[in-house]
Amino acid sequence: MVAEPPIEENVRPDDRIDDERLDEENTLKADYVRNVRGLLDAGDKGGVYDLVEPLHPADIADLFELCDENERRDLAVAITDLMSSDVIAELNDYVRETMMEALPAEAVALIAEQLENDDAVQLIEDLDVADQQAILAELADEDRVAIESALAYPEETAGRLMSREVVAVPEHMTVGGLIDFLRENVDLANDFYEVFVVDHIHHPVGTCQLSWILRTPRHIALSDVMKRDQTLVPVGLDQEEVALMFQKYALISAAVVDESGRLVGQMTVDDVVHIISEEASEDALLMSGAGEGDINEPIREAYGSRVRWLIANLGTALIGSLIIAAFGAAIEKLVALAILMPIVASIGGNAGTQTMAVSVRAIAMNQLTEANTLRILWREFRVAVLNGVTIAVLIGAATAAIFTPMLGAVIAVAMVINIITAGLAGVLVPVIFERLKQDPAVASSVFVTMITDSMGFFAFLGLAVVSGVAS
Amino acid sequence: MVAEPPIEENVRPDDRIDDERLDEENTLKADYVRNVRGLLDAGDKGGVYDLVEPLHPADIADLFELCDENERRDLAVAITDLMSSDVIAELNDYVRETMMEALPAEAVALIAEQLENDDAVQLIEDLDVADQQAILAELADEDRVAIESALAYPEETAGRLMSREVVAVPEHMTVGGLIDFLRENVDLANDFYEVFVVDHIHHPVGTCQLSWILRTPRHIALSDVMKRDQTLVPVGLDQEEVALMFQKYALISAAVVDESGRLVGQMTVDDVVHIISEEASEDALLMSGAGEGDINEPIREAYGSRVRWLIANLGTALIGSLIIAAFGAAIEKLVALAILMPIVASIGGNAGTQTMAVSVRAIAMNQLTEANTLRILWREFRVAVLNGVTIAVLIGAATAAIFTPMLGAVIAVAMVINIITAGLAGVLVPVIFERLKQDPAVASSVFVTMITDSMGFFAFLGLAVVSGVAS
Repeated sequence: MVAEPPIEENVRPDDRIDDERLDEENTLKADYVRNVRGLLDAGDKGGVYDLVEPLHPADIADLFELCDENERRDLAVAITDLMSSDVIAELNDYVRETMMEALPAEAVALIAEQLENDDAVQLIEDLDVADQQAILAELADEDRVAIESALAYPEETAGRLMSREVVAVPEHMTVGGLIDFLRENVDLANDFYEVFVVDHIHHPVGTCQLSWILRTPRHIALSDVMKRDQTLVPVGLDQEEVALMFQKYALISAAVVDESGRLVGQMTVDDVVHIISEEASEDALLMSGAGEGDINEPIREAYGSRVRWLIANLGTALIGSLIIAAFGAAIEKLVALAILMPIVASIGGNAGTQTMAVSVRAIAMNQLTEANTLRILWREFRVAVLNGVTIAVLIGAATAAIFTPMLGAVIAVAMVINIITAGLAGVLVPVIFERLKQDPAVASSVFVTMITDSMGFFAFLGLAVVSGVAS
Repeated sequence: MVAEPPIEENVRPDDRIDDERLDEENTLKADYVRNVRGLLDAGDKGGVYDLVEPLHPADIADLFELCDENERRDLAVAITDLMSSDVIAELNDYVRETMMEALPAEAVALIAEQLENDDAVQLIEDLDVADQQAILAELADEDRVAIESALAYPEETAGRLMSREVVAVPEHMTVGGLIDFLRENVDLANDFYEVFVVDHIHHPVGTCQLSWILRTPRHIALSDVMKRDQTLVPVGLDQEEVALMFQKYALISAAVVDESGRLVGQMTVDDVVHIISEEASEDALLMSGAGEGDINEPIREAYGSRVRWLIANLGTALIGSLIIAAFGAAIEKLVALAILMPIVASIGGNAGTQTMAVSVRAIAMNQLTEANTLRILWREFRVAVLNGVTIAVLIGAATAAIFTPMLGAVIAVAMVINIITAGLAGVLVPVIFERLKQDPAVASSVFVTMITDSMGFFAFLGLAVVSGVAS
């Protein structure tokens, strides 16, 4: 087709890179990474540079993450002048931290200077205070003040994450006046998506999307174009709430205001998308007790965050064992009980995890609130009854066939009881943690598992004794 | 402070609403919802209207989700002229679907007409074909064609999700010419964030952020302002990859091109954030076997998606039981085995889930690739050794104290074996599913649980027999 050459040449640079370096998922190909690492080991810096030079900064960041820790240093040295601020900003937090700790304060300061202030904050906020001070001392006053004021806000709040570079103009300004103002002031932020209109005490009174401005005649006053009802981000707001705000109101950027309502900065969606994806995915990791769950997390930290939950789980497992121990005599009489009891506990645990995962997600998205808790509880109860009866019929019939009909009836009833218990616990435990202002994702699974394990063993073994199958 | 009144009046409308209707998390207060539902039951449409009228469309959508199914109909009737396209677009898919199925085709068509085309597609894509046809027949040709062409693309691809309204201009145009063009063409999309520069056959050759345009003198040609190297979204790309693209390259919007490289639409980040959060959170739900895991999902569907995994889990639990049965004689001799064996299985399962959650997340984020699988496997092995030894010491000591030292040694060794097995399985199972082009989040947990259960029982009971503690 006539159209092909221009496509290859100008239109699809990404695809052009694709073929050699990126697969269809925009991930660096294993062969490509292998080549780079090979040249690194061979000490061929020039070769490495030529290989890496065509990459997008985000891909260079990925390359660092795909290399071993000891290789990252060499890579950084080999491609120093490709280590743009975009690369640093895109680096995984752990990888960035270890790399920065390896560098002298002056070097980090040099990097921090190139970065937008909000990225510079990210760069040094995880370093220990001594290093922070050393680096800040190297910075120009203006940058230092901006970064220090950001560090003054608690981690993971809008104050930490916001960019201080905003375009704020007075109400009486006309569209033409604004355009001229923007053309004259070259030192303004490069990318911005809305202009904030402020009053004489710097309180936001409205906002103009750039697209509206471009489409309005020069003589019109901004006050006639701007949207007065805008979503404002309190400077102390937690990043999770900021992310939900951006999602809920489909924001591209938003003004950040301090306690007195003054415009102090803005948050843009390109910074928020990372938070949205972090916050949305961390629940899976927290529920599984994997802590941060980042594959770049140092082993010691990963061990620390995971072993805590394994120990907690050990505690809950012991409770199950105590219940089993109480029925030791019955098990000695009928070993079939020992063979079957894990099934009741395991299915119950699975059912509880299902409901818990749904509830935790709904709570995180502000979908499960005081207003509809009862309805959701009733919903999960009905789902649990359906699941319980289905599984009970299956396992009951199998058990009746292999062992005795009575034992089949016992396990069937125990299964229904445990799956319904699991369904209710799966909603109530996270909801209760939420009410107690605890993160439902963190501790719920230990409790839900404890409840379903204990109930599974107790219901099954208890019914076995009561029904007399074990005597 | 003097500043307070203006703040209250203009600057913080959200906060003003907050006090009465929204809590600090921007969630509708239970009391407020209760009032609305009370008036609905009382049939006081006017009262309902007055209560709902001040809400943001996104909050009206939430209100529908917080009401029972039977109340939603009445609410829709009571606030008909508040049912803006924004409200419809913000509605949960299930809630929207059930509401649309309840309405006649003409009514849905009326709503579809007000919507942007991409939202209109969302509105009707889930309805059955007959309903779709009936609704499309009611639409103006232009809208119908746009929607039909979108429906022609597979679900969850860029073609389905993109907006067809883009600002595309020729290369030779000047900044001034563009601004005049935008001012004259009132029927252009209202909100857009970049202007796409195309060649004579409508292939994108560059892109201009609106902020660059606003800051450039009128006489400059776009070809001198535009960025030539832009990220293009192939029209057939899956939404998950689109979301990763937007995150990785921090995009606000991107051009969508067809197979021949022609510009056919654009995706904007405000549509993508929902996908990012969906894709990031669905893993937790899939891993737990909760399917869609939406609290608005009809009970029958929730039952169907969950019971499948409970049945699968029943199968894996039976395998565990078979292993236990093989050691029935040992258990009859030493009931302590029955008391302790669930601990080994349960902790192993927990350890496996931790590693699996980390691996599944890393795979989803394209962080765990062929290039670093071995390193991650080695990493998880070392974490597993640390966890295994820690837990083994605790449970071994306790068992030695309560039962016999030999039994303590047996359970300690079994625990180390099972936690290491869990660590390796937690990486390998998801990686293998990924290689087989299966979603690692879906089936991994069943297999990991099966492996850790079986290994837990086998290692513990087997060692008990071999070591002779059970004879």
